[in-house]
Amino acid sequence: MIRQRLFAEFLATSLLLVTVVGSGIMAERLAGGNDAVALMANTLATVGGLYILIELFRPVSGAHMNPAVSTVMAMRGELSWPLLPGYIVVQLLGAACGAWLANAMFDLPLLEFSTKARTGLGQWLGEIVATAGLLLVVLRAPSSRVAAMVAAYIGAAYWFTSSTSFANPAASFGRMFSDSFAGIAPDDVPAFIAAQILGATLGAAINKLVGTADRV
Amino acid sequence: MIRQRLFAEFLATSLLLVTVVGSGIMAERLAGGNDAVALMANTLATVGGLYILIELFRPVSGAHMNPAVSTVMAMRGELSWPLLPGYIVVQLLGAACGAWLANAMFDLPLLEFSTKARTGLGQWLGEIVATAGLLLVVLRAPSSRVAAMVAAYIGAAYWFTSSTSFANPAASFGRMFSDSFAGIAPDDVPAFIAAQILGATLGAAINKLVGTADRV
Amino acid sequence: MIRQRLFAEFLATSLLLVTVVGSGIMAERLAGGNDAVALMANTLATVGGLYILIELFRPVSGAHMNPAVSTVMAMRGELSWPLLPGYIVVQLLGAACGAWLANAMFDLPLLEFSTKARTGLGQWLGEIVATAGLLLVVLRAPSSRVAAMVAAYIGAAYWFTSSTSFANPAASFGRMFSDSFAGIAPDDVPAFIAAQILGATLGAAINKLVGTADRV
Amino acid sequence: MIRQRLFAEFLATSLLLVTVVGSGIMAERLAGGNDAVALMANTLATVGGLYILIELFRPVSGAHMNPAVSTVMAMRGELSWPLLPGYIVVQLLGAACGAWLANAMFDLPLLEFSTKARTGLGQWLGEIVATAGLLLVVLRAPSSRVAAMVAAYIGAAYWFTSSTSFANPAASFGRMFSDSFAGIAPDDVPAFIAAQILGATLGAAINKLVGTADRV
Repeated sequence: MIRQRLFAEFLATSLLLVTVVGSGIMAERLAGGNDAVALMANTLATVGGLYILIELFRPVSGAHMNPAVSTVMAMRGELSWPLLPGYIVVQLLGAACGAWLANAMFDLPLLEFSTKARTGLGQWLGEIVATAGLLLVVLRAPSSRVAAMVAAYIGAAYWFTSSTSFANPAASFGRMFSDSFAGIAPDDVPAFIAAQILGATLGAAINKLVGTADRV
Repeated sequence: MIRQRLFAEFLATSLLLVTVVGSGIMAERLAGGNDAVALMANTLATVGGLYILIELFRPVSGAHMNPAVSTVMAMRGELSWPLLPGYIVVQLLGAACGAWLANAMFDLPLLEFSTKARTGLGQWLGEIVATAGLLLVVLRAPSSRVAAMVAAYIGAAYWFTSSTSFANPAASFGRMFSDSFAGIAPDDVPAFIAAQILGATLGAAINKLVGTADRV
Repeated sequence: MIRQRLFAEFLATSLLLVTVVGSGIMAERLAGGNDAVALMANTLATVGGLYILIELFRPVSGAHMNPAVSTVMAMRGELSWPLLPGYIVVQLLGAACGAWLANAMFDLPLLEFSTKARTGLGQWLGEIVATAGLLLVVLRAPSSRVAAMVAAYIGAAYWFTSSTSFANPAASFGRMFSDSFAGIAPDDVPAFIAAQILGATLGAAINKLVGTADRV
Repeated sequence: MIRQRLFAEFLATSLLLVTVVGSGIMAERLAGGNDAVALMANTLATVGGLYILIELFRPVSGAHMNPAVSTVMAMRGELSWPLLPGYIVVQLLGAACGAWLANAMFDLPLLEFSTKARTGLGQWLGEIVATAGLLLVVLRAPSSRVAAMVAAYIGAAYWFTSSTSFANPAASFGRMFSDSFAGIAPDDVPAFIAAQILGATLGAAINKLVGTADRV
């Protein structure tokens, strides 16, 4: 059963990266240089993909697809600590495999590295905001709506953050392997991940501050 | 608990303005001058953001994020009068902070004022219609669907009103601080707010006229 | 109570036309000549508007907003025959008022007539298909989902029919009064309405043919 | 009752192809050469259409609209084997009729063949991924959400696969008859169908591997 959970988490994360990277390549190829049209297509595909991946795999593994989420879940006792390292390993591995599969489908070199620079104070602040918001959604959403809410949140955050809201260390890792519109240069990944960890911590803290108040 | 409600209302309103202003800046930067593409991206981000903000914060503070809505709620006995001034203060403060945070993420001057003119009889009529419609939705929507319905309504009203449907005095106030596609020149704000108050009153009156009839 | 139902039906139909015509004007103005972008914006606004109008007014009047739907409902005993003429009158009146209100918001002449030609066998066939499909949705949708399903259907049919799916005699009447992207020249309205009546009849017949089979 | 099920399956598949092909023609005509805008419109129409077709016809025939899905359903005992040939015949026939009806609405020759080349290892891999994913969704989605989930999945897969995700032998067959943006040259159909069969098998196998674990 642990094997099933790890397999589900691997599968979900790799399909998430197939969605994000594949639709990024397709959108860039078709958009004729209009980046807003490309990002809109990339957004809609990500929203649809996230929604179904969370619905499908949440009953098996929780469908975190995100080491920051898994870590917070472990802190809250909703994921047993011994499972955490396994979760993070399969999330990172799945993310890389997803990017490779996208590359294969689009006849690109299987192994390539992104040259897309994503750096600077503004974008790091973007990742902090994006990940804090994601944690608020994950921790507060009623379970029957969490898939739709996470999907809607990320769709909005692609646009309202300056970094297009990676909000996920595994996604940041996997996107390194795509030299496209959706990629991120390897040198810029560590700062993104640091900002995401800070954002996740902040989100969990704000969640406590808001409290549960009237919720029945 | 009152502190929690005020904090939730502050947080929700500031995140709403982060969404509206941030996605407005991003959309304008990427759209290459096609305003329809920019407004469509701005719309989709706003719809997603509103949906999750109402779902997340309604159990705590009601998630009005809008002084016109809070005032009508007070009149109907759904918000205690002594809380109303606090709600309005944190909504205005939250709106300004949200615009500032968006500016910070996009490497813009923290404090700037909009130069975007939004004025004229047609746009004022637009705000009256937009706010009247919003009140109809808020007052008639079944509580399990109010988040999706408000989001869908505002998404449509961005397009069917000539003013792109601010429909919210706090949003009008916060958007003053963004010299972007999503902004509004400070001189034009008072007339927008007056139209919104008129629209809210009209919406509440129409709601009474329609009555509850067959609703079980 | 009859007065309330007629008022609700009037209000719903006029707001539907505000949505369709208003967003058509806005989309045309902003799209810089790209008709696909304009129709996409027009579609998204219509989908959002239809969804909330049906949710809001169905408990009072049924929210048909469409004489073809009301007539089929009368035939099935779900609307009393004596109410039908009143429904049709307020739907037509509401449609015209909605177009006028949209014109007023966008600083256009209140009373204008469309010059947009919409004619030919292909488009008439489009209206037959569009209205038959609408009736299938209206007659078969579970009541808890009918608003979302009608909205999704019309959004799709804007694109898959050659006529952009008016599918509604009242909407055809009201759109005459808008010399925009969303309008229809008065001379072309009668054939559209004839096709819609034919389509509604066909849809009701197909619905019977499919039967209820396994539905519990 | 068998006749009703076959008729429902015929009707659903033909309306699916009307949606896919019709919106493809409309999108290509309006998009002024921007293929990303065209595919986005085609995607949104397909998502809306799939959602309502599954909701409407699932209670009668299951609304597979897809021989690969019907075959897997037969293997799982959810469709009786003697019905399978009938299902496949009406799905293929319905797909062709849907393409012809779309051609008629858009004043194109009723019978035409596509010249759009869709071939190569990358696209075949795309179809394998697309169909495997579709089967995962169909086999794992809770029945109350399957319509929304299949629609969201296909909408995302239009973008994240290199082949724009046909994922359906009947759709591949029907699209042969449309010389448009949405078509596929007859010579390229057999390899697509082979990839879809492989993908469906793979999807069913992966579904077993994931298991049902914690699902209550």
